[in-house]
Amino acid sequence: MAYFDNVSNIKFEGATSTNPLAYKFYNSEEKIGDKTMEEHLKFSVAYWHTFTEDLSDPFGVGTAIRPWDKHTDPMDKAKARVEAAFELFEKLNVPYFAFHDVDIAPEGSSLKESFDNQDTIVAMIKDYMKDSKVKLLWNTVNNFSHPRFVQGAASSNNADVFAYSAAKVKKGLEVGKELGAENYVFWGGREGYESLLNTDMKLELDNLGRFFHMANDYAKEIGFDAQFLIEPKPKEPTTHQYDYDVATSHAFLQNYGLEDIFKFNIEANHATLAGHTFEHEIHYARINNMLGSLDANQGHPHLGWDTDEFPSDLYTTTLAMYEVLKNGGLGRGGLNFDSKVRRTSFEPEDLFKAHIVGMDSYALGLRVAHQMLEDKVLENIISDRYSSYTEGIGKEIVEGKTDFKQLSDYALGLSDIQNKSGQLEVIKGILNQYLVRAAAN
Amino acid sequence: MAYFDNVSNIKFEGATSTNPLAYKFYNSEEKIGDKTMEEHLKFSVAYWHTFTEDLSDPFGVGTAIRPWDKHTDPMDKAKARVEAAFELFEKLNVPYFAFHDVDIAPEGSSLKESFDNQDTIVAMIKDYMKDSKVKLLWNTVNNFSHPRFVQGAASSNNADVFAYSAAKVKKGLEVGKELGAENYVFWGGREGYESLLNTDMKLELDNLGRFFHMANDYAKEIGFDAQFLIEPKPKEPTTHQYDYDVATSHAFLQNYGLEDIFKFNIEANHATLAGHTFEHEIHYARINNMLGSLDANQGHPHLGWDTDEFPSDLYTTTLAMYEVLKNGGLGRGGLNFDSKVRRTSFEPEDLFKAHIVGMDSYALGLRVAHQMLEDKVLENIISDRYSSYTEGIGKEIVEGKTDFKQLSDYALGLSDIQNKSGQLEVIKGILNQYLVRAAAN
Amino acid sequence: MAYFDNVSNIKFEGATSTNPLAYKFYNSEEKIGDKTMEEHLKFSVAYWHTFTEDLSDPFGVGTAIRPWDKHTDPMDKAKARVEAAFELFEKLNVPYFAFHDVDIAPEGSSLKESFDNQDTIVAMIKDYMKDSKVKLLWNTVNNFSHPRFVQGAASSNNADVFAYSAAKVKKGLEVGKELGAENYVFWGGREGYESLLNTDMKLELDNLGRFFHMANDYAKEIGFDAQFLIEPKPKEPTTHQYDYDVATSHAFLQNYGLEDIFKFNIEANHATLAGHTFEHEIHYARINNMLGSLDANQGHPHLGWDTDEFPSDLYTTTLAMYEVLKNGGLGRGGLNFDSKVRRTSFEPEDLFKAHIVGMDSYALGLRVAHQMLEDKVLENIISDRYSSYTEGIGKEIVEGKTDFKQLSDYALGLSDIQNKSGQLEVIKGILNQYLVRAAAN
Amino acid sequence: MAYFDNVSNIKFEGATSTNPLAYKFYNSEEKIGDKTMEEHLKFSVAYWHTFTEDLSDPFGVGTAIRPWDKHTDPMDKAKARVEAAFELFEKLNVPYFAFHDVDIAPEGSSLKESFDNQDTIVAMIKDYMKDSKVKLLWNTVNNFSHPRFVQGAASSNNADVFAYSAAKVKKGLEVGKELGAENYVFWGGREGYESLLNTDMKLELDNLGRFFHMANDYAKEIGFDAQFLIEPKPKEPTTHQYDYDVATSHAFLQNYGLEDIFKFNIEANHATLAGHTFEHEIHYARINNMLGSLDANQGHPHLGWDTDEFPSDLYTTTLAMYEVLKNGGLGRGGLNFDSKVRRTSFEPEDLFKAHIVGMDSYALGLRVAHQMLEDKVLENIISDRYSSYTEGIGKEIVEGKTDFKQLSDYALGLSDIQNKSGQLEVIKGILNQYLVRAAAN
Ligand SMILES: [Co+2]
Ligand SMILES: [Co+2]
Ligand SMILES: [Co+2]
Ligand SMILES: [Co+2]
Ligand SMILES: [Co+2]
Ligand SMILES: [Co+2]
Ligand SMILES: [Co+2]
Ligand SMILES: [Co+2]
Repeated sequence: MAYFDNVSNIKFEGATSTNPLAYKFYNSEEKIGDKTMEEHLKFSVAYWHTFTEDLSDPFGVGTAIRPWDKHTDPMDKAKARVEAAFELFEKLNVPYFAFHDVDIAPEGSSLKESFDNQDTIVAMIKDYMKDSKVKLLWNTVNNFSHPRFVQGAASSNNADVFAYSAAKVKKGLEVGKELGAENYVFWGGREGYESLLNTDMKLELDNLGRFFHMANDYAKEIGFDAQFLIEPKPKEPTTHQYDYDVATSHAFLQNYGLEDIFKFNIEANHATLAGHTFEHEIHYARINNMLGSLDANQGHPHLGWDTDEFPSDLYTTTLAMYEVLKNGGLGRGGLNFDSKVRRTSFEPEDLFKAHIVGMDSYALGLRVAHQMLEDKVLENIISDRYSSYTEGIGKEIVEGKTDFKQLSDYALGLSDIQNKSGQLEVIKGILNQYLVRAAAN
Repeated sequence: MAYFDNVSNIKFEGATSTNPLAYKFYNSEEKIGDKTMEEHLKFSVAYWHTFTEDLSDPFGVGTAIRPWDKHTDPMDKAKARVEAAFELFEKLNVPYFAFHDVDIAPEGSSLKESFDNQDTIVAMIKDYMKDSKVKLLWNTVNNFSHPRFVQGAASSNNADVFAYSAAKVKKGLEVGKELGAENYVFWGGREGYESLLNTDMKLELDNLGRFFHMANDYAKEIGFDAQFLIEPKPKEPTTHQYDYDVATSHAFLQNYGLEDIFKFNIEANHATLAGHTFEHEIHYARINNMLGSLDANQGHPHLGWDTDEFPSDLYTTTLAMYEVLKNGGLGRGGLNFDSKVRRTSFEPEDLFKAHIVGMDSYALGLRVAHQMLEDKVLENIISDRYSSYTEGIGKEIVEGKTDFKQLSDYALGLSDIQNKSGQLEVIKGILNQYLVRAAAN
Repeated sequence: MAYFDNVSNIKFEGATSTNPLAYKFYNSEEKIGDKTMEEHLKFSVAYWHTFTEDLSDPFGVGTAIRPWDKHTDPMDKAKARVEAAFELFEKLNVPYFAFHDVDIAPEGSSLKESFDNQDTIVAMIKDYMKDSKVKLLWNTVNNFSHPRFVQGAASSNNADVFAYSAAKVKKGLEVGKELGAENYVFWGGREGYESLLNTDMKLELDNLGRFFHMANDYAKEIGFDAQFLIEPKPKEPTTHQYDYDVATSHAFLQNYGLEDIFKFNIEANHATLAGHTFEHEIHYARINNMLGSLDANQGHPHLGWDTDEFPSDLYTTTLAMYEVLKNGGLGRGGLNFDSKVRRTSFEPEDLFKAHIVGMDSYALGLRVAHQMLEDKVLENIISDRYSSYTEGIGKEIVEGKTDFKQLSDYALGLSDIQNKSGQLEVIKGILNQYLVRAAAN
Repeated sequence: MAYFDNVSNIKFEGATSTNPLAYKFYNSEEKIGDKTMEEHLKFSVAYWHTFTEDLSDPFGVGTAIRPWDKHTDPMDKAKARVEAAFELFEKLNVPYFAFHDVDIAPEGSSLKESFDNQDTIVAMIKDYMKDSKVKLLWNTVNNFSHPRFVQGAASSNNADVFAYSAAKVKKGLEVGKELGAENYVFWGGREGYESLLNTDMKLELDNLGRFFHMANDYAKEIGFDAQFLIEPKPKEPTTHQYDYDVATSHAFLQNYGLEDIFKFNIEANHATLAGHTFEHEIHYARINNMLGSLDANQGHPHLGWDTDEFPSDLYTTTLAMYEVLKNGGLGRGGLNFDSKVRRTSFEPEDLFKAHIVGMDSYALGLRVAHQMLEDKVLENIISDRYSSYTEGIGKEIVEGKTDFKQLSDYALGLSDIQNKSGQLEVIKGILNQYLVRAAAN
């Protein structure tokens, strides 16, 4: 059955369309360079925000109008969500989706029953996937919402909770294998602390390290070759989350010998909550060869919590796509909309409209970034700016052929040091030129 | 003599120009609606950032290369700055400028000598203005840099400082009159507190109120009819500044019977430091009929101090110009670049390049905002969204014809309340459409 | 029946007690100056955080173990909560409580049924109050949680919602009168905007002004003489809340002729979210004679949302109580614990333990503030610091007997201006001395 | 000669003293546990803030009154500063100091002349040290203030600047050796970026890694065995600083094989600018065996820049000292006052008064932390809270004897999971009890 009767397959209508149910910039088959937009962008729908989120917030109950809410039996509702999901995937024409265990199937009264519920729905999803082009970008398990995880999962002070978390991730790895997931994500929702006053941080981090090694061992054992991804977030719900940002998580991974096993799933809103730009986090991961996948969304610069807005800021989408293109693409990763409609956008059609805005915004970002790369705008600025390292003393520095004594002698012999303007204002102006000409390209 | 030999008059070259010394979007004589760009935008150069700023920061000395720094005598340097200023005004073809007393003339060893220095330079400026189209958007006095103002000016705990501040503002009003300033600005650099522990806030605020009334009395007395403007800022250098934001200053003005005397000079970076968007602050002033003038710049969302970057964010310039157009223009105000080149943009030509980027960014903002208004994009959304107030109970509410009893009876009779989606995602997508087509219009 | 069998009446055991169910510093009958601690502090329990809050957060469901949750019928649960509430009030020996309409009684399927439910519970509460010393500090209505308020209440774009909100406040005023509430609070949960792009801020503010006047008219009509209070908050759930902070709300009240009708209910965590200290907000209200009541809690300086922690920071409690003492007490207001136990403090006894910590922290704050006032520590610093305004030119300034010309002549005649150190470091050291000797006093 | 004639040797007068020039809590010879306060706290005076800082800020010139400013010749002034420094060290009775190269000696017109100036002053300092107990906690070089470092030092885009920086650090290592420095600090003032748009972050980080290895090689070569320390800071003056926080720097050190060479110098105000508490940063370093030294100061939670206030917050000093005691002391590190008097505390005596407040605040923190450790307050809470890891499945987890299959089987067999309240409110109350009894102990 259809849950979105008012919505047909979304078509590309071009930059001047006023139809909220049409793409203005995302044209899946159009080639940008040597790949289609679809191949570049690899959009993914987040099951939780789109099919289970009720749009409640700390000061109000849910407002979402969702046709599948007519079902009261949890398994009936879960099945209806699968139907609605594949209808939306097809109508949006997105190639990927992503989910947590609890998004697709209700928790039972026992762990066993929860697993059984999952099995039922996973079978149904697998069936639907056969008739669909949509693939599973990644799956994960929710080890943070239930009261048992109140003090963490793998970093809980309660060993039973550690075991319970392991059981859930074990199942998650099996489900990922069953559905052919490209990646498996770890977001440590409550892996952090509320206060150091009652926390044994060393033990918690050690346990987290052990947990990840066991997860990797099990994935190998069952032949699940998805890329493991850590999704950093600095805080919320915990006061300090151990995977604070990409660099902090990089320190952790190196410290526990996990750096070759993991890459990063980077979320825009998590980046800004940590005091970074999205492009900074992607750039850091890229130059360390650890860029895995992206959670595309945005926050509001004046709000101190995770708003998970659909992305629309073209500066951010452009600079994110610039990093992606520099990385040679997203590899096994994709652009997952970890985005929810505003609480005021509660109508079913808003789910489509918001995804369209997100996809158009990234399509524009791709277009602008590609054009800038074609024209080598930033490349030329940078190669010129750092040219002193391609010859003379600079070359010796980067080749490791010098030392403090030689450098000191060299410096003592310098008559004067000439720096050149960094031209930041000009560069920002150029970025604007590319942006406002994007529709014309 | 010429200080910018490498720079000719800046010409409009269009959206695809790669010349950093040309306008790409600002075409002064082009009409947007019924006014030229120059008339809409009323750009002003800030004397301090452009002619006296040395680009030092708390961790480093000045880097700016300024040809007039060859002069060692303060008055010679001051005169050279006037020459350089008018050369830049003419080459940029801007219609306005703005200054503090200490920007244009060095402080002497006595207040009298400082005034005399000012008189000399003011006469020189007046002379230059005769041969130039440039006008004085506003002037002000710097009552915050000298050690005597360490604990404030009109809000100082030291009555001598209050008197000294009054003398300087008195002179400022006379200078403004002499040069035909359109506005007179009060930015309370240290009118605030470092800590409540040693502060008599009530006395300080009362004194501030008295000071403003005396300033107004004196302006009237000498027939200086400039618009008085308060420029709010929440903090820096003080921990809490009394003119925190537009609303706080509005409370102050009402509290002291000054609301009809003042309007606001709103700075973008001050808005964001206060946790507001620039457009919020402008909007608040506009709907209270208190929009005076704008200090065009921008901050970085992750930096907690006033960076005074040249504006380049097109979302901000668009929404600011949208407010300006809704206001019927800036009146006696203008768009003053309270912006400084980055410390890394230390070459003299960067002064031009940065202004060009700022002007182009506002020209684009004007263009996008104008087109959106032409198409009544937001107007239609809003009139539709609030249509319930044009009839029935809504009309009675806005006309003041109802009360709680009638409303309660009405509500008790309602069977159900229907809200409609706010469509925020769609609206942001539309804004993007206008943005990326800006160069094509 | 009893819901807290493990808890006896909480006793004062003194500074060295290790009993989490005893007061260490709050000794209700002990006199501090001429009033008892109970009279100074006027503690109030917040019904919502203590009896209805389930400790869910945006990433997890409720963890709270509450004995009254055994009831499934909403009215049965509501009645059980009243029983539990009065048991807790008595065992804690607090003199006040506060509630929203929806805290005490479930919403029905119609507005009429909701009112009927309230009537039942209000009668029960009134009955309980007869046998108890506890009084109603304030009541209010929740016009923000239900989906109908998704776009605001009095500032909704939907006139039906305005009417519905009016009906609820009308009922709230009647309930307040029935129970003898000292104050009536307005917290504009969603009276603000998500984005200016689809908002008619002028109309919304005008409607808010009209709403408050109608509320006042009705209160007068029914003879409900409670003090009206606005509780400012800058954001959350909305992006911008109209009652941003005390100063912003003061501007609004003056603008709509409401400044004599309202005072402020100031919450600590709201203050810090707005970029202010708690003491700043109280101080501002105090010097404008608008200090009404306090919502005692605290936030975490690194978290950007309202955490509503129980207050424990002694610097804040001391400086808040300092303002209260300077104000001559709280008048009709009190210290309401708008505080919730952490999600990790989910046991029923935590409700007692957390209140005890909050009460002890304010008792210490009172003690320290009182001692500092007795010793005139800050008073002497301030009177010395501002002594220049008690004679000569300073006296003429504060008496309004001078003008810019006289002040300028005076300043021109000054040979030098002498400022004195503000001694902030020393003052902070003195505050510490008082703090660490608090238990010894 | 004496520069502080009004100040005698600072004596301990106890908790009730009102003498701003006396210690109230710091009693150097008093034993806390098995060490004297002096041995525990190892206070250090920062040469820059105390002897060269003029108290200018971005909106005002210096206000500091410094007797040695009577000298106009830079070398005369430098020598006078040494005299003043040792007078202050002795009168305060502090055991350590710390400096940058440019603090002690003026830069010359050439690098050679700068080195010569340093040699002169270093010889003088060495001479003074012979007659004093004061030792050099650490030295460093300022590679960020001069215009040549406008785009960084070791991470500059200009290879000449890299070489120049190397020459200065080489000299710094020699000076450190000459004066017997315990540590050598690297604070990367401009080692970061303003914008990614014109930055080759990979090259810059690689160069930074090379630079540190060369520094280490040279230190070994000359037999300078000081501990190398990185001082993280997230931003200011750069937009993003590579040594963002301890964890980020830990990632960097591991990535470049430097983790065994460096420890951390952690500054309180840098921690809070990065969104962390001071104790978090110390704790992270401690559990990774990388706690080197501390820069004791504090910021204001509402100000987004480095205010470097003298520390007075007793919560912070207590929790910092708690970490230090858990670490078994500071080893070769100390508590360096990277703190400056407020711009309003401009009198020479304020230098003493502010240090006294800082030292008293840390003495109190030491006292409270020691007492809490003696009573095993937090230790007992934590060992109880994590007890599940000492037996059964928990023990197997921490001993690495289990895997996902076993854990899953275990979890499937669990009937229910019991968590216990984290008791955070109670713990904060206990901390307050210790605090307010500190003077009585
Ligand atoms: Co995410
Ligand atoms: Co998120
Ligand atoms: Co400005
Ligand atoms: Co500014
Ligand atoms: Co509240
Ligand atoms: Co709150
Ligand atoms: Co430091
Ligand atoms: Co610092």
